[in-house]
Amino acid sequence: MNNKIYMNELNKYKDKKITVSGFVDNIKDLKYVQFLILRDHTGKVQVTIEKNDNNKELNETVKTLSLDSTVNIEGVLNEAPNVKLNGMEIIPTKINVTSIAEELPLNYKEKNISRSVRHDYRNLDLRSEKNYKLFQIETYFENALRQYCIKNDFIELHSPKITAKAAESGSEVFKIDFFGQEAALAQSPQFYKQMAMASGFDKVFEIGPAFRAEKSNTSYHASEINMCDVEISWIENISKIEDFEEEFLKYGFEKLNSKYGNMIKNDFNSKLVNIDATIPRITFFEAKQILKNRYNYVGERKTDFDRKEELLLGKYALECFKSDFIFIEGFPFESRAFYQQVDENGNTKSYDLLYRGLEITTGALREHNYDKLLNQVLEKGINPDELKAYLELFKYGCPPHGGYGLGLSRVLMKTLEIDNIMDTNFIYRGPSRKLKL
Amino acid sequence: MNNKIYMNELNKYKDKKITVSGFVDNIKDLKYVQFLILRDHTGKVQVTIEKNDNNKELNETVKTLSLDSTVNIEGVLNEAPNVKLNGMEIIPTKINVTSIAEELPLNYKEKNISRSVRHDYRNLDLRSEKNYKLFQIETYFENALRQYCIKNDFIELHSPKITAKAAESGSEVFKIDFFGQEAALAQSPQFYKQMAMASGFDKVFEIGPAFRAEKSNTSYHASEINMCDVEISWIENISKIEDFEEEFLKYGFEKLNSKYGNMIKNDFNSKLVNIDATIPRITFFEAKQILKNRYNYVGERKTDFDRKEELLLGKYALECFKSDFIFIEGFPFESRAFYQQVDENGNTKSYDLLYRGLEITTGALREHNYDKLLNQVLEKGINPDELKAYLELFKYGCPPHGGYGLGLSRVLMKTLEIDNIMDTNFIYRGPSRKLKL
Repeated sequence: MNNKIYMNELNKYKDKKITVSGFVDNIKDLKYVQFLILRDHTGKVQVTIEKNDNNKELNETVKTLSLDSTVNIEGVLNEAPNVKLNGMEIIPTKINVTSIAEELPLNYKEKNISRSVRHDYRNLDLRSEKNYKLFQIETYFENALRQYCIKNDFIELHSPKITAKAAESGSEVFKIDFFGQEAALAQSPQFYKQMAMASGFDKVFEIGPAFRAEKSNTSYHASEINMCDVEISWIENISKIEDFEEEFLKYGFEKLNSKYGNMIKNDFNSKLVNIDATIPRITFFEAKQILKNRYNYVGERKTDFDRKEELLLGKYALECFKSDFIFIEGFPFESRAFYQQVDENGNTKSYDLLYRGLEITTGALREHNYDKLLNQVLEKGINPDELKAYLELFKYGCPPHGGYGLGLSRVLMKTLEIDNIMDTNFIYRGPSRKLKL
Repeated sequence: MNNKIYMNELNKYKDKKITVSGFVDNIKDLKYVQFLILRDHTGKVQVTIEKNDNNKELNETVKTLSLDSTVNIEGVLNEAPNVKLNGMEIIPTKINVTSIAEELPLNYKEKNISRSVRHDYRNLDLRSEKNYKLFQIETYFENALRQYCIKNDFIELHSPKITAKAAESGSEVFKIDFFGQEAALAQSPQFYKQMAMASGFDKVFEIGPAFRAEKSNTSYHASEINMCDVEISWIENISKIEDFEEEFLKYGFEKLNSKYGNMIKNDFNSKLVNIDATIPRITFFEAKQILKNRYNYVGERKTDFDRKEELLLGKYALECFKSDFIFIEGFPFESRAFYQQVDENGNTKSYDLLYRGLEITTGALREHNYDKLLNQVLEKGINPDELKAYLELFKYGCPPHGGYGLGLSRVLMKTLEIDNIMDTNFIYRGPSRKLKL
């Protein structure tokens, strides 16, 4: 690889001649001495250059530097108890300038810059320490979830993102011209993971982008999201899917807490997820009762929750079960997708999972009986011709199956107590943002 | 999870009462007995039902079954040395039919069906044993590559797939209307991984979809591909990137060979990758000389290779270095992207990696100097206004960096000696295929 010596391993190199590389984090050019602070994503180090005849060239080079320029510096790493930064300094013999920065249009170290401006200069905003840490945490957590699936013998799908014009939710898709054919960007891998079930793949997952053309300017919607989708065959009870998701999340959070717990607490000032609590499971109608009786709140919608109801249910889970999560089961068919299995009361064999009061998952058993599925399509007023290829999947034998989709950015938001999904995406896409790159 | 007992673990359940689930793989309804063969993705088992008064209901149920219907069967697993299939059979007490299959329009077990027809019925085609194994192998190999990056402290990116109208290659992008803004589907995460470098992310990778609107109907192009992209900062020599990719691939293939070597040899009739050979590295111009002197072949293009040249170079690597791979370095700028670094002779600091005669990777050092980069943009005849946001990335300090993109489906193709990329995608997207789902 790059053989770079990182700032967090400098301890190993005391009294040695080394080369360090990084961004110029600070420059102090005093009468008798110049100080450079050099930064990489792991830490900082002070470089001290006396002003004297021997150092003439180095002194001149330092004068050309600006904040956030990048350099390689060759020198000796000395212990220096007086130096506040790690008690060491580098006395350079050579400074190689690899790039000179123009004056930054955004001071990414400042805390009170509006979110919108920060995202206008996302390339600079991402230089903040916290942002690097956020993506470190994302990488680690997502990988833990993936490993949980892989050690349970799941196949990882790569389903197409260019799809035949989907009927699933009409106007809320991005349209695309695929060599003269009408196509759309996939809103989820739903149909494809069910296709995998009908193909006998037994257990599949996919982590990948999904596209939503909703004009929602809320703090928890994005036009392009990173989803983790899971689907499992031979499941005939919704609680088995909840069991799996609970284990899967606990595995991820246990790994995360043990690796980055301190970072989550100290850098993000956030509470660790309580992985010891069992996630409570209540029905949709029980939830409505609790909202009314305990919180004296009745939401407008009879078949779904509004934001306030979700937040109250999150509160309820924490107060009564010490849980950061709560499963709500059995939503009325009216508010759910046509492919969810319906029970004898007309409610779906489905659940939502709320995390600190935000919906992060919808899970369900799927209707795999062709005739029943066709009825549900008709009941929703969808033209079955538009779903022909999907419906076909269930004509030639298909095991009972179910699964869920998890919005990973929302999980990150709630884990790091970030109040807007924009900040959990490398580059956020939303209806009100101008595309720059 | 589903608590299903899989066919490959039946040995543990001899003489026990169990429930097995699967697809009906075969039915024999004889005068005195009925045989069902039940299949899941791990294997098969025989179910034997004598015809007698006690079994009347079971006998009737079996009569309703068709091939590829799905069932749960409760019964006792008996040792049965006379049964060819694993020397065991299930004597059922209950058969629960979970789906009845109509007559299949494709016999996916037959070998001589055209690729195009198989893909018309991909949902059934995927039921073949070999297809399940292919995706098992893909899952495992891709995960090994990911783990290599993660243990080397890479950040996993999720760069947007909806991009500002890219100038990179004009007409070869899928266009999209993003809330009234002109947008395009990302052809690669190139610009974004470089943005991560300029943001100080140091080392990043991404595994995700990339979209190519080329009308190429070759056996190794697809409109939607699964790419693994890698980018590393503080690299100033192309050989360091090659070193990394070589280690990365060898790690993946070592894991793959040890886990699925037998499957690759026996089920796919393919030779294992020789991970002991050092991958040879030759320059573009050496390659042209070798093609002329050793194989008496001169391709039409002076600045690139044609398919025949690639195949011959693959042959050369195998004959002279026992290597399945070969790096070709220093392509002329004319045939390369504008952002590759150029040396003093006007050739790029770049490489292609061929695997068994097929290009699977392009790697390069990137030009991170704003002025030089702008010159290269102009030299390519691109309007710099179209690249404004990209060029901006290099104004505010950026470490030297380089990386590569690896086409994962091509790797799978060559590893399993499959002659068409269609078969390595869950659902293939290409200009000549109709979108069904």
